[in-house]
Amino acid sequence: MVTGNSSVTVFAPASVSNVGPGFDILGFAIEGMGDKIRLSLNNDGQYSIQSIGAELPLNPDKNVATVALKALARDVGYKGGFDIKIEKGFAPGSGLGSSASSAVGAVFAANQLLSLGYSKEELIPYALDGEQVASGNRHADNIAPCMLGGFVAVRSCDPFDGFQIPVPSDLKVLIIFPDVPIKTSDARNMLPNQVPLAAGIAQAANMGALVKGLMSSDYQLIGDALTDAFAQPFRKQLIPLFDEVEALVKGNGAAGFTISGSGPAMFGFFRGDIDLEPLKQQIAARYEQREITVRFHESGINERGVEIING
Amino acid sequence: MVTGNSSVTVFAPASVSNVGPGFDILGFAIEGMGDKIRLSLNNDGQYSIQSIGAELPLNPDKNVATVALKALARDVGYKGGFDIKIEKGFAPGSGLGSSASSAVGAVFAANQLLSLGYSKEELIPYALDGEQVASGNRHADNIAPCMLGGFVAVRSCDPFDGFQIPVPSDLKVLIIFPDVPIKTSDARNMLPNQVPLAAGIAQAANMGALVKGLMSSDYQLIGDALTDAFAQPFRKQLIPLFDEVEALVKGNGAAGFTISGSGPAMFGFFRGDIDLEPLKQQIAARYEQREITVRFHESGINERGVEIING
Repeated sequence: MVTGNSSVTVFAPASVSNVGPGFDILGFAIEGMGDKIRLSLNNDGQYSIQSIGAELPLNPDKNVATVALKALARDVGYKGGFDIKIEKGFAPGSGLGSSASSAVGAVFAANQLLSLGYSKEELIPYALDGEQVASGNRHADNIAPCMLGGFVAVRSCDPFDGFQIPVPSDLKVLIIFPDVPIKTSDARNMLPNQVPLAAGIAQAANMGALVKGLMSSDYQLIGDALTDAFAQPFRKQLIPLFDEVEALVKGNGAAGFTISGSGPAMFGFFRGDIDLEPLKQQIAARYEQREITVRFHESGINERGVEIING
Repeated sequence: MVTGNSSVTVFAPASVSNVGPGFDILGFAIEGMGDKIRLSLNNDGQYSIQSIGAELPLNPDKNVATVALKALARDVGYKGGFDIKIEKGFAPGSGLGSSASSAVGAVFAANQLLSLGYSKEELIPYALDGEQVASGNRHADNIAPCMLGGFVAVRSCDPFDGFQIPVPSDLKVLIIFPDVPIKTSDARNMLPNQVPLAAGIAQAANMGALVKGLMSSDYQLIGDALTDAFAQPFRKQLIPLFDEVEALVKGNGAAGFTISGSGPAMFGFFRGDIDLEPLKQQIAARYEQREITVRFHESGINERGVEIING
């Protein structure tokens, strides 16, 4: 029986995963971009989906949000239904954790509506059940930062074990998304099952350097460390103009540049109040020559993660 | 022509390399154990070696200290000779950076005697020239902490690029060295050229966790992170009773346990003033049953690195 508040609206931020040497394990939440999700309880036991701003699967067994809700409902014995309205703030398939935002927003809202009292960490496995429908994999490097905010490194998913990394308060990110399709599954199939020992050693060194750089506001070290020996060499081939964009971004003061998620989005870190308009214009001009639309998002890090925006 | 002070005595600490996920890249210097090295200039252009406490090569083209000195002398145009007295505070081949201590001590002393004005970082490549004679490899994860002190992660050797990691002031290390021979070259030949992608990802996650744990005094995280996916699974087979010792150390409050260097030394981290005598007795009893001598060293981290102990 539905009692108390029967609907809530939450905001679940977009996120960048595969952060350089943190391939498969490190992500961060983005300020000012994400999903607005309104969740309501119903007594008829049905799951209904309304999608605004993107074409999402409307079959409750295929939509990441409702799959996550069903996993949670099953565990807690909730027999009612949910009506969910998902207002996408960014495009699925862009490499910014679209499915994670929907899954996290849904379970966080349900936890609130049903007064379940789960911690955010405890909700992560349910969100993973949802994301698994979209990606075929249980990776929490979008889910965890979307849920918790900030930079989160994931050591294991079930149960969730990870740690947050304090970052400089003036850290700014520029996200660049050329409008070309990349399927996560295609990007994953490019990866070898084995990597050279030297690449493994370099990846660990850079992961350590990135954590040290972030925790001590050492932008030089952050920039040196933001590289990925495992996936980037393969996946950058799927992104038009990757090398040229990298040169432009690094040439304009970035502390590092790499792919967001499995692409096509890319991002660079910057310190403080640098004016990025000239850089954006240069990048846009290059893509225009190739007749590819490119969008930008410039912001700080979202330190709060998913949150209620009204009861 | 020899001028000014013509001899100096330095202390170069022992060091632990291959620190868990920092295989090949992370080491730290040990308080209270190391080489005492007295270096003197001579005008006859000869290199003479006196060794106390261990049998070291006395051929100047085979001894790590004199090979390092020759590399330095060649670069700066010094035509004189050196007399070096090396008092080993620990056994070569124990996995505690014996050759690094000798090479670092020698070039640091020469820099002082010849008033060369090199920074410690600038001296690292010369020490590497020395260590290369012993190990056949240019790895700085003993050299760099011995030189600089503390925990040092190495991103590249020539020129040296690395970073120090602040650690908890109450961090204590227990080193356990069973008296069994392991040659570094044998230990290296056990390693595969390729590692599973999943092992590479786990190694990077643990390296990030170890840096976060050390910088935030999170002993739980340090302990969880102190594992090596690349070398330990192979090399632990060379160390008698490794699994039993691991269980004893972890069962007695350690924040992690792993191999030092390429072994046979092992180490555990502990917080503060814990009494380790009962643990040592348990370990010693196990080795006694196997008729293997075992020694222990219990100390803090050496934060200073190589230093002059008298002019």
